[in-house]
Amino acid sequence: MKTQLYSFWRSSAAFRVRIALNLKGLEYEVIPVHLVRQGGEQTSPEYANKNPNRLVPLYTDGNYTIHQSLAIIEYLEETQPSPPLLPRLPIDRAWVRAIAMDIAIEIHPLSNLRVLRYLIKKLGISMEAKDVWYQHWMALGLESLEKQLSSDSRVGRFACGAQPGLIDICLVPQLFNALSAKMDMKAYPTLMRIFAECMTLPAFIDASWEKQIDAEGSNPFIPPKE
Amino acid sequence: MKTQLYSFWRSSAAFRVRIALNLKGLEYEVIPVHLVRQGGEQTSPEYANKNPNRLVPLYTDGNYTIHQSLAIIEYLEETQPSPPLLPRLPIDRAWVRAIAMDIAIEIHPLSNLRVLRYLIKKLGISMEAKDVWYQHWMALGLESLEKQLSSDSRVGRFACGAQPGLIDICLVPQLFNALSAKMDMKAYPTLMRIFAECMTLPAFIDASWEKQIDAEGSNPFIPPKE
Repeated sequence: MKTQLYSFWRSSAAFRVRIALNLKGLEYEVIPVHLVRQGGEQTSPEYANKNPNRLVPLYTDGNYTIHQSLAIIEYLEETQPSPPLLPRLPIDRAWVRAIAMDIAIEIHPLSNLRVLRYLIKKLGISMEAKDVWYQHWMALGLESLEKQLSSDSRVGRFACGAQPGLIDICLVPQLFNALSAKMDMKAYPTLMRIFAECMTLPAFIDASWEKQIDAEGSNPFIPPKE
Repeated sequence: MKTQLYSFWRSSAAFRVRIALNLKGLEYEVIPVHLVRQGGEQTSPEYANKNPNRLVPLYTDGNYTIHQSLAIIEYLEETQPSPPLLPRLPIDRAWVRAIAMDIAIEIHPLSNLRVLRYLIKKLGISMEAKDVWYQHWMALGLESLEKQLSSDSRVGRFACGAQPGLIDICLVPQLFNALSAKMDMKAYPTLMRIFAECMTLPAFIDASWEKQIDAEGSNPFIPPKE
C-alpha cells in the first residue's frame, strides 16, 4: 500500500511531516481531514478509532500507523536515513531536537485550534483577547528562537548547517502562522532569513498551504524583493 | 565537572529527566530553580542567559547545556545506551515517542504554570474556571492514553514491555499532577496500574516531589492497599 498522510492544509504539525516526506523524496497520498467543518472531521468516531488523540497528522504505510509529527519524523529518519534531517553528533542532535521542541511544545499547543475554541466558547473571551493570547505565546517563543539561532555557530544557510533539517521543518509552518496572523516580524531577522531560504526549495513549497489538495487559501508569505 | 540539572521539585519536565538519569544510573547534582517565588527565578537575566526559554529543566555536563526534557533524554539514550529507555525496532520506538509526546505536547503545555498565570492574571478567569481548564485538558489526554495503553500488546509490566522506559518517564509526573489536583482516576485503570509499578522502583521514588532538596510538599500518591 502507498504511504498515506492524514493531513489538513493549515495544520502546522501535518505541514512538518509533509516537508519531511518531501525532503526524503518519499511518495505519499494525502487524505484530507477537515479540522473545522462540522466541528471537525477529526472528532468522528471513525477517525478517533485510527487516532485516539483526534488530531492530525496520522501516518500509515498500510501495516502501521504513527501519530505525533515529531515521532513520525524520527521514524522516517531511522528507516530512511538519507538525506539526514538530524546532524551526526549527539550534542548537535540534542540542540536540534531541543529547538524543534521549543516550537512543537512551547509555542504550537497554545495556539492549537481546539485551545482557541475553548478560550472563546468555554471561557467567553473576546476575539481580541484571543488574538492577544495567540500573539503573546508566539512572540515569547519566537524571541527565544531568534536569540538561539542568531548566536550559534551551527547555523548556516539553514538552521543547522548547509542542508535543511528538523528545525527548519518545524520553523516554517510556525512562521506561516505568525505571518497569517499579520505579526510584526522585524524582531526576528534570523528566523525570516532561514524561512526565505527554505521557501526556495520544492520540498517546502510543495508542502505549503496553497499546494494542498484541500487548500482553501494561499500562503501568507510574500518573498522579499531583491 | 559533575553533571548538573536545573530543576524544580514540582516541574513535570524536570521530574522526567530526574527519572531518566536515575534509570541510567548517572550521578547528577540538582540546582533548584524556584518557579514561583518572586515571579519565578527562571525569569532572572542570569538564568535566561543559560536558557532563553526560561523554563526548567536545563542539563549541563560542564561543556554543553541542553534544554527540553525529551531532547535531554534522547541525548542520554544516545550517549549512555544502557539500560535502554526506547525499544529496538523503529516502529516500536515511534509508538513510544508518540505516546510520550501525547503527554509532553498535548497535555503538559496547557497546564504549565505560566499558562495558568496568564489565564488568571491576564484573562481574569476565576480559580474555578482555571481548575476546569486544567482538568479538561488532563482528562482529554488521559482518556486517549488509557485507550492506547489498554489495547496494545506492547504493554507489559510497564508501558512498553518488562522494563521502564520513555512512556513511564512521562506518565508518572503527569499523574502526580492529576492526583495532586484530586482528579477522579477511576477511568484510567491501566495508567494507574503502570504508575503503581513505577512507584515501586527507586529511580522513580528518588525523582519524586518529596525526595527533592527543594521540596515543599509530599507526593500525592498513596499506594493501594494489598
